[in-house]
Amino acid sequence: MRISELAKTTGVPVATIKYYLREGLLPEGERTSPTQAVYDERHAERLRVIRALIASGVSIAESRRVVAALDAPPENPLDLLGAAHAAVTPAADGPVDLTAVQDLVAPLGWRPGLCDDTVLRGVATALAGLESAGFSVPAGVMPVYLSALRDIARAEIAGVPTDSIESAVRYVVLGTVLVEPLLLALRRVAEQIASAERFGGPAAGQNEQPGGGSAAVAGER
Amino acid sequence: MRISELAKTTGVPVATIKYYLREGLLPEGERTSPTQAVYDERHAERLRVIRALIASGVSIAESRRVVAALDAPPENPLDLLGAAHAAVTPAADGPVDLTAVQDLVAPLGWRPGLCDDTVLRGVATALAGLESAGFSVPAGVMPVYLSALRDIARAEIAGVPTDSIESAVRYVVLGTVLVEPLLLALRRVAEQIASAERFGGPAAGQNEQPGGGSAAVAGER
Repeated sequence: MRISELAKTTGVPVATIKYYLREGLLPEGERTSPTQAVYDERHAERLRVIRALIASGVSIAESRRVVAALDAPPENPLDLLGAAHAAVTPAADGPVDLTAVQDLVAPLGWRPGLCDDTVLRGVATALAGLESAGFSVPAGVMPVYLSALRDIARAEIAGVPTDSIESAVRYVVLGTVLVEPLLLALRRVAEQIASAERFGGPAAGQNEQPGGGSAAVAGER
Repeated sequence: MRISELAKTTGVPVATIKYYLREGLLPEGERTSPTQAVYDERHAERLRVIRALIASGVSIAESRRVVAALDAPPENPLDLLGAAHAAVTPAADGPVDLTAVQDLVAPLGWRPGLCDDTVLRGVATALAGLESAGFSVPAGVMPVYLSALRDIARAEIAGVPTDSIESAVRYVVLGTVLVEPLLLALRRVAEQIASAERFGGPAAGQNEQPGGGSAAVAGER
């Protein structure tokens, strides 16, 4: 199909498709003349993936690394996960002492060599952000984070398809990035429900108005 | 202190402080002359919070809503959480059918009125993003997400301090936003460890080289 048809099929404007081509996110079509090229269903699928990445807040540069991991997958699933994580983990500046992070993640089963430094540095960066705001996770909450995330990770990795390297790549690379907004959104729902359970609301019968005060907050938007 | 001292104390350049003042993120100092103002420790603390929000990827507009929630806290902790969530949840466009989301979050204890529509729409948006990329969460993984996030939310809400409204506000508003990068970073560590457990690596003794293939990936950066 020509670029105009690709735009129609995917709902992505021609100008945006050209931008993705220039940025190296979308592979070139097959040239049929110096000014024309044809595209196929793989371009359409790739476009949908790019749109989802961008919509999830992944930058152009990060998206380029994600699609590179999709295009040239390492053979070992372990390397694949590393590539996916490296693609979307901001590089930390300068040397970081990872000893405290290693102690923190010991309950996850961490041992030297079991995960790469990129993701440990990601944890160090997140902790530094909390500290600079003067915020600390209560002592009793951190063990719950670790145990809940261990459950999540084990279920996710158990779900990695083994029928083909393509489907494993797709699952690991996209699952890492695209599921993040879902997890964060579900956490907010769970927090509001837990809050209603603790502080009252329709559940506790202390607030007869459907939606309670929270509805007013939502209505302000 | 004068603005130059505030800059020195916090490490935030004067030009950036002036930008935050213009954007309404930082309250004005006390005017001592038409061209001079003095600032106190509360300005320094607020600046540290703003820096942490921005560093976490929160936009200027979202940060403005977060500090507004810090400045004018609702009296009910339930409303507070709604305000914090509304501040950092992108508004969904147009009407959204929330029935499917309500079914999905039923295992969290959802009932009508128990949480506001803003956060349910956040889940709908995240699910739409996955769907548009042709990605679906395996059937066996979703229940694990829900149960793990219920555990996380209950621990977090149990940790809300009740000694003062100020500390509750700070905990809820900053905890919602600033903890997100930590949870995502810990998930990546947990995924790599779970992957090493399933697919081999130093843990399973199938890869004698410390760091395995993942070290090469990290080294590429």
